[in-house]
Amino acid sequence: MAETFGPLEHREGLGRGFRSEWQESLNSDNVTSHTSSNISPLDPEEFRRQGHMIIDFLADYYRDVEKYPVLSQVEPGYLQKCLPKSTPHNPEPIETILQDLQEHIVPGFTHWQSPNFFAYFQCTSSIAGFLGEMPSTGFNVVGFSWIASPAATELETIVVDWLGEMLELPKSFLFSGNGGGVLQGTTCEAVLCTIVAARDQMLSQIGKENLIKTIKTSKSTSYILSPDSLRAQIYEDVEAGLVPLFLCATVGTTATAAIDPLESLCAVAKDYGMWVHVDAAYAGSAYPSALIKSLSTNPEFLRNKASDSKQVVDNKDWQITLSRRFRSLKLWFVLRSYGVANLRSFLRNHDLPSALSETVYKNGKLDIVSKELANEANRKLLESINMSGCVFMTHAVVEGVFVIRFAVGATLVEERHVITAWKVVQEHANVILST
Amino acid sequence: MAETFGPLEHREGLGRGFRSEWQESLNSDNVTSHTSSNISPLDPEEFRRQGHMIIDFLADYYRDVEKYPVLSQVEPGYLQKCLPKSTPHNPEPIETILQDLQEHIVPGFTHWQSPNFFAYFQCTSSIAGFLGEMPSTGFNVVGFSWIASPAATELETIVVDWLGEMLELPKSFLFSGNGGGVLQGTTCEAVLCTIVAARDQMLSQIGKENLIKTIKTSKSTSYILSPDSLRAQIYEDVEAGLVPLFLCATVGTTATAAIDPLESLCAVAKDYGMWVHVDAAYAGSAYPSALIKSLSTNPEFLRNKASDSKQVVDNKDWQITLSRRFRSLKLWFVLRSYGVANLRSFLRNHDLPSALSETVYKNGKLDIVSKELANEANRKLLESINMSGCVFMTHAVVEGVFVIRFAVGATLVEERHVITAWKVVQEHANVILST
Repeated sequence: MAETFGPLEHREGLGRGFRSEWQESLNSDNVTSHTSSNISPLDPEEFRRQGHMIIDFLADYYRDVEKYPVLSQVEPGYLQKCLPKSTPHNPEPIETILQDLQEHIVPGFTHWQSPNFFAYFQCTSSIAGFLGEMPSTGFNVVGFSWIASPAATELETIVVDWLGEMLELPKSFLFSGNGGGVLQGTTCEAVLCTIVAARDQMLSQIGKENLIKTIKTSKSTSYILSPDSLRAQIYEDVEAGLVPLFLCATVGTTATAAIDPLESLCAVAKDYGMWVHVDAAYAGSAYPSALIKSLSTNPEFLRNKASDSKQVVDNKDWQITLSRRFRSLKLWFVLRSYGVANLRSFLRNHDLPSALSETVYKNGKLDIVSKELANEANRKLLESINMSGCVFMTHAVVEGVFVIRFAVGATLVEERHVITAWKVVQEHANVILST
Repeated sequence: MAETFGPLEHREGLGRGFRSEWQESLNSDNVTSHTSSNISPLDPEEFRRQGHMIIDFLADYYRDVEKYPVLSQVEPGYLQKCLPKSTPHNPEPIETILQDLQEHIVPGFTHWQSPNFFAYFQCTSSIAGFLGEMPSTGFNVVGFSWIASPAATELETIVVDWLGEMLELPKSFLFSGNGGGVLQGTTCEAVLCTIVAARDQMLSQIGKENLIKTIKTSKSTSYILSPDSLRAQIYEDVEAGLVPLFLCATVGTTATAAIDPLESLCAVAKDYGMWVHVDAAYAGSAYPSALIKSLSTNPEFLRNKASDSKQVVDNKDWQITLSRRFRSLKLWFVLRSYGVANLRSFLRNHDLPSALSETVYKNGKLDIVSKELANEANRKLLESINMSGCVFMTHAVVEGVFVIRFAVGATLVEERHVITAWKVVQEHANVILST
């Protein structure tokens, strides 16, 4: 039977059979080893060089997609044997990474873009879709609010209406008919949104309050969550017939960077058998079996031998959504391209907030949390600074005090940007103080 | 003050000031108008040409990022005035789309990659991160289960452990220490996962059953949800002291493509004031104000004049997560590149399932839902077909009958792939029937 079907021809090769344009570069003089300890994470010319290389890699993949076995032929655990066990210490050139991608990762694909894929549901690609994702990734704007990137919000309003018109939805579903909507990442997220909305609507009708409680913190305890306040709230809830089940403690809150006393909070939670989630650099006190038990779904159309054998992890069991992007590929590129050593030194040399604190303390007319200027003046100051287009900062209100938040961490930020930002603050403050 | 700060120099230009490499191509002979009605959505050479162009576009953007005002200077509603009101009927060349992107979209950005961005939290880009996203987008594999793309799952297992080691997490958090995890899209999703897991753990401890009920359907009613069954379940729930609040009806179920009788189901739901969600091509009977009331958050650090003015939409209010990708850019590229007319004709000419049905009815030894072969034989048949690497199909179990699902919809699929798939089924069935 083998000779009947194209895909089998190349099974032996498993991705080694194709001579591709991007591979030509491996033999040329183009290979530069990026072992210098300087990371230039957004150098335009390096971006251009590597970007063109990966476009060729993908163009070759589309050309050859039918030649691969559509269902991957690998055995569980195959990749562990091909890749190094620990994070690369030193950076590796893009050429090496692409070679590993072709030799070790591609053979482990079930090819969703193959025309021989008739499983699950299709997940169709197009050149235009790919091109649209690229600037979305490249600009990397986060459009949660209009102000956070007006174009991201307004373009969505426009194309959501375009889509609604194409589907001939009733006018009342469109923005132009006082309806509207956003593009959700997956169906699961969309359904979840509606369940939550329906629940809250019903709760408000039958007079029950929101199910998630917040507990106040104060300056006297440096804005940390006090174990005593927690215990008091739990006591009150239990008296009211509620079942406390989840505590979210924080290491570094958004407004004040407060660090909750985890040990004593956990002691309180333990008394009531509550789940503790730590929101911070730590991935949370994951309790994998309970998580999987709760989030795992196993409808018949997803069943397969590998899953039934329990030899493999199914990512869907660890998250709300069923579908998911191939996120690990991004992390793999980053860790290999820069290496642990460089990433660490980059972060250590990036301690710019302290540079600012020093400058402010040396030259400051303003306290960092100003008590001299009234809240209204601070609000005006921030607005004036932001409207200049020179720098963009946001704010927090901590116990009634309007605080200008200055978050330092952009890829391209250098000490000079921080210094300039401080000058901008001073100049705008002078104008406001003099009027 | 204007001369002090780089960003102001170019405010007048708002994106028109830069002569870029990709723009050179506009004046060359490269501009081809794609007005032909043939869509070749994954043509490798066209992918290569357009991909290189967009890499240059982004490289230029990184080079110039500091020259833009970091906070966008546009007024609410600016984009409606620049872009056409309805979906383009005919395809537009990539050059025109990129020109609009530069002239109309970029000025509406708040530049998250600018080193002068000190707001919210940083959202850092790097060349390696971008490169990693590109094959993730290009391969477009959906890694929900191991089998759905083994490499996607196994690479995640490996890099999650790399990351855990870098963060010096306790061994028990790592796969290698019987822990593990996945990369979540956003913090909000991660927190939600833990809340749901904690809730279900507590429900099982206090002996309450799952909160979401499923109602059985049967062949006698073509697997649609019967309004009578719904009413009976609701009656039972209300008797038990529960509050029915959400009905999810389906237009085209996964296993049998059944279409629920929406009108009579809605009538039942209305009697109890329940929210009805329709899972299908329709975006669901969104009820925008209740949705926003439930999902909207307004912590101080996100407050701003534009949001307070209620003149703008904030996307965060329509979804579970706070952060979000710039999804509309992708849809905009797709709709403009292909145009409504082409997209419609592409879908209409893509009616390949009926081609298969005809073939099967003409030549078939097998029923589409086989009663002749036992379930076990069908399961063997599917496994044998899939292991060949020639085609990949999945299955469903409908009232105890094992059904081979054949989902047609891949971008590259043509009639010949469907015909070949049928031959593969026949050949493997012959082998199984003869043993």
